Amino acid sequence: MKIYVRLFSLMFSILIIASCNYQVQEENNQKQDSDPLPSWNEGATKSAIIEFVNEVTKKGGPDFVEEADRIATFDNDGTLWVEQPMYTQRLFAFDRVKELAPQHPEWKTKQPFKALLEGDMKTIGASGMKGLLEIVMATHSGMTAVEFEKTVSNWLATHKHPRFKRPFTECVYQPQLELLAYLRANGFKTFIVSGGGIQFMRPMTETTYGIPPEQVVGSSVVTEFQIKDGKPVLVRMPKIDFINDKAGKPVGIYEHIGRRPILAFGNSDSDMQMIEYTMAGEGRRLGLFVHHTDAEREYAYDRDSHVGKLEKALDVADANGWIIVDMKQDWKTVFPSK
Amino acid sequence: MKIYVRLFSLMFSILIIASCNYQVQEENNQKQDSDPLPSWNEGATKSAIIEFVNEVTKKGGPDFVEEADRIATFDNDGTLWVEQPMYTQRLFAFDRVKELAPQHPEWKTKQPFKALLEGDMKTIGASGMKGLLEIVMATHSGMTAVEFEKTVSNWLATHKHPRFKRPFTECVYQPQLELLAYLRANGFKTFIVSGGGIQFMRPMTETTYGIPPEQVVGSSVVTEFQIKDGKPVLVRMPKIDFINDKAGKPVGIYEHIGRRPILAFGNSDSDMQMIEYTMAGEGRRLGLFVHHTDAEREYAYDRDSHVGKLEKALDVADANGWIIVDMKQDWKTVFPSK
Repeated sequence: MKIYVRLFSLMFSILIIASCNYQVQEENNQKQDSDPLPSWNEGATKSAIIEFVNEVTKKGGPDFVEEADRIATFDNDGTLWVEQPMYTQRLFAFDRVKELAPQHPEWKTKQPFKALLEGDMKTIGASGMKGLLEIVMATHSGMTAVEFEKTVSNWLATHKHPRFKRPFTECVYQPQLELLAYLRANGFKTFIVSGGGIQFMRPMTETTYGIPPEQVVGSSVVTEFQIKDGKPVLVRMPKIDFINDKAGKPVGIYEHIGRRPILAFGNSDSDMQMIEYTMAGEGRRLGLFVHHTDAEREYAYDRDSHVGKLEKALDVADANGWIIVDMKQDWKTVFPSK
Repeated sequence: MKIYVRLFSLMFSILIIASCNYQVQEENNQKQDSDPLPSWNEGATKSAIIEFVNEVTKKGGPDFVEEADRIATFDNDGTLWVEQPMYTQRLFAFDRVKELAPQHPEWKTKQPFKALLEGDMKTIGASGMKGLLEIVMATHSGMTAVEFEKTVSNWLATHKHPRFKRPFTECVYQPQLELLAYLRANGFKTFIVSGGGIQFMRPMTETTYGIPPEQVVGSSVVTEFQIKDGKPVLVRMPKIDFINDKAGKPVGIYEHIGRRPILAFGNSDSDMQMIEYTMAGEGRRLGLFVHHTDAEREYAYDRDSHVGKLEKALDVADANGWIIVDMKQDWKTVFPSK
């Protein structure tokens, strides 16, 4: 009997020690054991991403990067979520004009609002950047920061993508959600750096991408601090403050992040300067572009597209060591399952 | 003999289990067991801070705040480090004019540079904001982002505070370092929101305060993305982009953080709008001002000071529920030990 008790005690000790070790081991190895990017097909692109992450996180290795410097920046429209047939923010602006029209009887005769209310897209197109800016200002300014946030949140909760018939926050790319999570699990800090409105994106980035508002960089309107009915409020003014696009992206990164990314992901020529700036830093870097090649599951467009034009970047990608992600070939699934 | 082996095994098991539990317990209780703010004297101010942190972190309590929303913003000059006899950044600018003078022979006859090189502070003072801006532009623009960062880092490493004879990065307030660490240990994200130059502060905030560059909000000059000698660079232009001071502070918070702080800490009337904006949010909030009352250990100044003037905020603090931190009375030590 005594020998059993003794054996039991010994085995119990061993079990406790083993289980303690196992827990630590499990946490350490979990990343390596399972596929961190299940929605990415095996191939050169996926291998390049995983190899990059392995190398910059290998302590003592030649490409090791301190955790604080593992900054990854992602464009939003066309890189993290669908940008066709029209930028989501533009759809929002157009919808808002229709919703606000009863309070603006003058819009019945004033362009480009008249055309928009009549569904005359040709006239809107002809009104160019100036017309678009008027629509943006009418729908993105003249209210407090809190009011605008509520309006955006409500719109996102109640509108669906015209083709996919699902909320815009579900028209995001599953492979990119996995990549964001994979990078964060490896000590990266993930940022959005988009030409879109910074305050238009913020209501959805945390729940959708796991990216908190303070890690979103975008275009902005001038905002003023005012005392309204005795309460301090921030009022959005009808004036562009900063356009975070093209050459504006590295500037936005400098102002908001203050560190050069080691990984940047875009999908159009507007992301070229961000990728150039990223790649020009010392040490190992990764620059990627989504190439929309999948008309069946999403859209196929590049050189001739009015939205997300990808031309110059395609031409120089190879020479610059940039990775072109072929949506059709590299992505096993495009959208999260409902 | 057998009984000893059995006893030993049993005791070993118990020890292992106990030590596992102890480790977990220790981590959980460390915050409560030891004083998190040893450089703060016991009293109403310290109690108010600790009570606030306890209440907003008490899950299920009426004042509980989700971790993501635990945003704390700190002014820098006079709140985290010494701002007398002159803002550190102004000392830097004046020093840089002297260092750059050989490359600018025209400064020998051009004001305000002539006065500065001759040590004629009266004429500089008389040149007002316009003169100061010229000095700032001459020393903060016309170089790349990387060059400016190196210049600031070098200056901070080689210059000392005129009175305390220690590097400026050691003229920081020990009680505030403890408060920043205490807040972070309780799930807060800590930010600097300063009128100072955003890129002037960033080289020192991470090592000194544990605040990474992306959590620093400040004033900025316009920056341009350019290709120079075939390399993409960011060039700092001689034009103010944003003044992150007074009513600019809530705007800077909106643009950079995108969430309203629940705790804000300043030291002058220039911080009032930040505190007002913070306190105007729903739920429990804390607004504090450092009152410099300690001529012996640091400086004593408020209503009549040319730097860090504290007048209006002092008058309305009580009525608004803002806490005035009395440096002499509330801080056991002022600076970190060497």
